[in-house]
Amino acid sequence: MEAHLFLLQLALILVAARILGELALMGGLPPVIGELLAGVLLGPSLLGWIEPGETLQMLAEIGVIMLVFEVGLDADINRLVHAGGQSLIVAIGGFVLPFLLGFAVCRYAFDFELLPSLMVGGTLTATSIGITVRVLTDLGRRHSTEGQIILGAAVLDDVMGVMLLSVLYDFSQHGHISGAHLLRIGAFIGLFFVLAPVAAKLISHMIDVFHRRHDTPGLIPTTMVALVLSFAGLAHFVGAPELLGGFAAGLALSRRFFLPFGIALAADHHFSDLILSQMKPIVRLFTPIFFVMVGLSLDLRIVDWGSSQTWVISLALLAVAIAGKFGGALCVFQPANTRVAIGMGMVPRGEVGLVFAELSRVTGMLDPGTYAILMLVIAYTTLLAPFWIKSFYKRHADGMELSISEPGHQYVGPAGSTIGPGPVRD
Amino acid sequence: MEAHLFLLQLALILVAARILGELALMGGLPPVIGELLAGVLLGPSLLGWIEPGETLQMLAEIGVIMLVFEVGLDADINRLVHAGGQSLIVAIGGFVLPFLLGFAVCRYAFDFELLPSLMVGGTLTATSIGITVRVLTDLGRRHSTEGQIILGAAVLDDVMGVMLLSVLYDFSQHGHISGAHLLRIGAFIGLFFVLAPVAAKLISHMIDVFHRRHDTPGLIPTTMVALVLSFAGLAHFVGAPELLGGFAAGLALSRRFFLPFGIALAADHHFSDLILSQMKPIVRLFTPIFFVMVGLSLDLRIVDWGSSQTWVISLALLAVAIAGKFGGALCVFQPANTRVAIGMGMVPRGEVGLVFAELSRVTGMLDPGTYAILMLVIAYTTLLAPFWIKSFYKRHADGMELSISEPGHQYVGPAGSTIGPGPVRD
Repeated sequence: MEAHLFLLQLALILVAARILGELALMGGLPPVIGELLAGVLLGPSLLGWIEPGETLQMLAEIGVIMLVFEVGLDADINRLVHAGGQSLIVAIGGFVLPFLLGFAVCRYAFDFELLPSLMVGGTLTATSIGITVRVLTDLGRRHSTEGQIILGAAVLDDVMGVMLLSVLYDFSQHGHISGAHLLRIGAFIGLFFVLAPVAAKLISHMIDVFHRRHDTPGLIPTTMVALVLSFAGLAHFVGAPELLGGFAAGLALSRRFFLPFGIALAADHHFSDLILSQMKPIVRLFTPIFFVMVGLSLDLRIVDWGSSQTWVISLALLAVAIAGKFGGALCVFQPANTRVAIGMGMVPRGEVGLVFAELSRVTGMLDPGTYAILMLVIAYTTLLAPFWIKSFYKRHADGMELSISEPGHQYVGPAGSTIGPGPVRD
Repeated sequence: MEAHLFLLQLALILVAARILGELALMGGLPPVIGELLAGVLLGPSLLGWIEPGETLQMLAEIGVIMLVFEVGLDADINRLVHAGGQSLIVAIGGFVLPFLLGFAVCRYAFDFELLPSLMVGGTLTATSIGITVRVLTDLGRRHSTEGQIILGAAVLDDVMGVMLLSVLYDFSQHGHISGAHLLRIGAFIGLFFVLAPVAAKLISHMIDVFHRRHDTPGLIPTTMVALVLSFAGLAHFVGAPELLGGFAAGLALSRRFFLPFGIALAADHHFSDLILSQMKPIVRLFTPIFFVMVGLSLDLRIVDWGSSQTWVISLALLAVAIAGKFGGALCVFQPANTRVAIGMGMVPRGEVGLVFAELSRVTGMLDPGTYAILMLVIAYTTLLAPFWIKSFYKRHADGMELSISEPGHQYVGPAGSTIGPGPVRD
């Protein structure tokens, strides 16, 4: 593609995301809805002005990695670990149930073949960390109890989703599943998640020491972005999703992360603040590209809207996608409202679902009709869940405990509810 | 390319640029030399770890646009206009002489065909704004008299280079040159350069008004990057180089730019500061990618180092490339040292020269041998000129007037000379 056309496309993506995001906010909705709709509008579904090409895909990938990096940077590792048991319950329930139910519905109710049924089940497993985190942030609930549980569960979910993808892909190619291989991947990912933050912390300490001696221009943006991207790249090599690397790097650089055995490194607070102020504009620039690209990737043109089968299968799978996520959420020891909030928070499918669907289509495991139906199911969960979550909080937020208040970050949204965009502020 | 490999490549580019830039600084050299060498090292010339693919090219394009945007943001339009007459002399002299001399040497001394001779002449015309500006910034001379003249001349040079490219391309395709077409392009570019800053100023004022009413997160990075990129894209449509659009947008948003007829827009200073602080990390992130990509694009592997012809032709063209730029510089009314500094500042060829050479190669106008020699000439001017300029200033800077001092931006470099990175600081 010629450079000037690419520059104009990128500018158009940024402007459309901003305008539709602001309009969503004025209408009392989470801005991420506007950004997703900007993609649907500009992409093949409606106007067809922008094709999701390789360069945009890479920028979107950087966008979601930067987003989870910032989430990690802002996360309280103690509270995440504390919520870990409950996150695990939510993650496993919300992974196994949609997979089994999705598989069963396709295989036994609609008579799909074995492999397509497995791939549909797989597509329904992984919660979109990006969308879930943004919705919670837009509503000022990221630091709530349910926010912590959802974040942990979404991360675990994503890891399981990527592992399942590699298992199903192996199965489709060789006809069997290697348990030893799976265990090895699991061990690698576990080891990575323990070692990566420690390594990132040590590297960032070296950068800090260098920064205090030679205050040369551009040190922080270039080295920090390089750190985050290289950890994301390395995550892939252990079999984990790329964004896990970004999350691990963010956790390591957060104010609340200490090295094992209580090793304290000097002047970290000042450096954390410096990183946050320098990285914020970069995170803000890249993340809308990710959400617009999710919208662009939902090609709703291929859906046969007139066919009753489209409606029956897609609504059945939507029911499974929602019920499956609630299954895990209802098992945790929390007040009823919190359990419902967790279930709803886990509903949006996005990036991993799209990867599943795309792989199934490219390898011929899914026919175009079923692929189109899956697009529709992903679109339902992605575009409707934020509305639903927002309206739930509008009715029930008063009675729910918000563990960490965010003074100075709260403002009253147009609908009168208290919306705090949290750390995603300039 | 797979996402994780791209992420690792990008991280490698950022880290290598940073390390080699810091080493250059420690050795008393402009850091940009380190960044260019990082590209030569990682690219096909030496290690061959990174191929310059489309995505990296787009990021590099954004990098150079962001760089000239910042130069515009920091420029004093009155002083640029004041220096305009002298810039024009330097630009025209430094454009016409290398073109004619380069053409004559190829055609009459080395018996090249007509078209290759024209293309070699064209390759030698355009000064690299990116490298020139970075070297002057690294040496703290961007706001000096010669810095103003060089900046203006390099911009004019680039415009003439791109126009010449389109003329030569037309000539190679249709065998004749349309004067009317050329005049139309010239008029469009002139009009663009008058209207674009006014339009950018009005748009930025609208963003400022919106920003004061709705302080939503990420407004400035997304809208400002979109503004800069869209002006860069539009510049292409009037026949100008993309970076002219970035420069025009930067000029419009600078503190010292007022709309025609003295129309003042309120609270601009605060907004300019906000733009600067939010855009700096983004500019710092993208610009090294550009310099590394220039290094990556210099494929020195294809040079036949053993051939005497390679040395004779390349050194003859280097002499022409240097003498041609001095021709214009020596005509301006300035002290002798300033004239020499201007001549040296105009020597680095980079982006436009590479575009010329690449187009000649792809269209078959140049054989691989001559293309390799051109690469070598570009490499000489790009890699040697910064050394030369640095050592000239080390000897003569004391006697030269520095029009605007940059308090707080100066620091003493390792070699004892005063190096001010100017506005390219965190």
